[in-house]
Amino acid sequence: MPTDLPQERAIRKPGSLELDPSGGEGVAIDETRKLIASNKVEGTTVYDGAGDEIGTVHNFMVDKVSGQVAYVVLSFGGFLGVGESYHPLPWRALRYDRQLGGYVVDVDRTRLESAPRYGADEDPFVDDEYGAKVDAYYRTAPTS
Amino acid sequence: MPTDLPQERAIRKPGSLELDPSGGEGVAIDETRKLIASNKVEGTTVYDGAGDEIGTVHNFMVDKVSGQVAYVVLSFGGFLGVGESYHPLPWRALRYDRQLGGYVVDVDRTRLESAPRYGADEDPFVDDEYGAKVDAYYRTAPTS
Repeated sequence: MPTDLPQERAIRKPGSLELDPSGGEGVAIDETRKLIASNKVEGTTVYDGAGDEIGTVHNFMVDKVSGQVAYVVLSFGGFLGVGESYHPLPWRALRYDRQLGGYVVDVDRTRLESAPRYGADEDPFVDDEYGAKVDAYYRTAPTS
Repeated sequence: MPTDLPQERAIRKPGSLELDPSGGEGVAIDETRKLIASNKVEGTTVYDGAGDEIGTVHNFMVDKVSGQVAYVVLSFGGFLGVGESYHPLPWRALRYDRQLGGYVVDVDRTRLESAPRYGADEDPFVDDEYGAKVDAYYRTAPTS
């Protein structure tokens, strides 16, 4: 199930980027911060339009030349990485909500579920055309 | 010494983002790729204007709202993390060189050496004003 992740909720403080409350260097706990370190984006909570948690950020895909995040790759869970799937979304499909302390995706779950995705052992961005495929899906796909 | 890192050169293929040639999932080896994953930026080689390696990328500091990389934090070495120091530079102070497969910094080494820096146990970006301090340094500092 790509939704409802009670285990993750339990180990993550709502509205927090804190990945490991037990400590560790440089953990991001202050949601007023404007910047996030590239090595700290993983685990940032992602919400749907209703404010319900639907997953977390796996990583950002950054344009090497412009420095602009082009895609946010969402993880919809899978316990201990088993069955985890990664869903890339165009950056413009998300907005950062300071109060929630995470990203909000205004896309139907149904539409997300049939969107381009890949497994933990795949790296489709090796092909520069993959991004265009993702763009096309979110631009034109019907909500089915 | 912030320069000359023969050990790093030895374990990193020149012009490559390959961090661990012995393997691992999703290692970025193709320099024609337009995008880089946020969890793979660490270790990207940084060159001076003459094309000499001066360090590596430690991380990117990304604006959570705009998705634009605001600062690139460089690491000037230190063996096994001992004595490692991190040097944040405004994104605009670097440019990606496809042929070199890394970032080029057109800033004097002397100027870099007296620039804002921090240690592995520090996280100055907790203070949102820290970025402005970095900006100011690279805008106004004399080459001394």
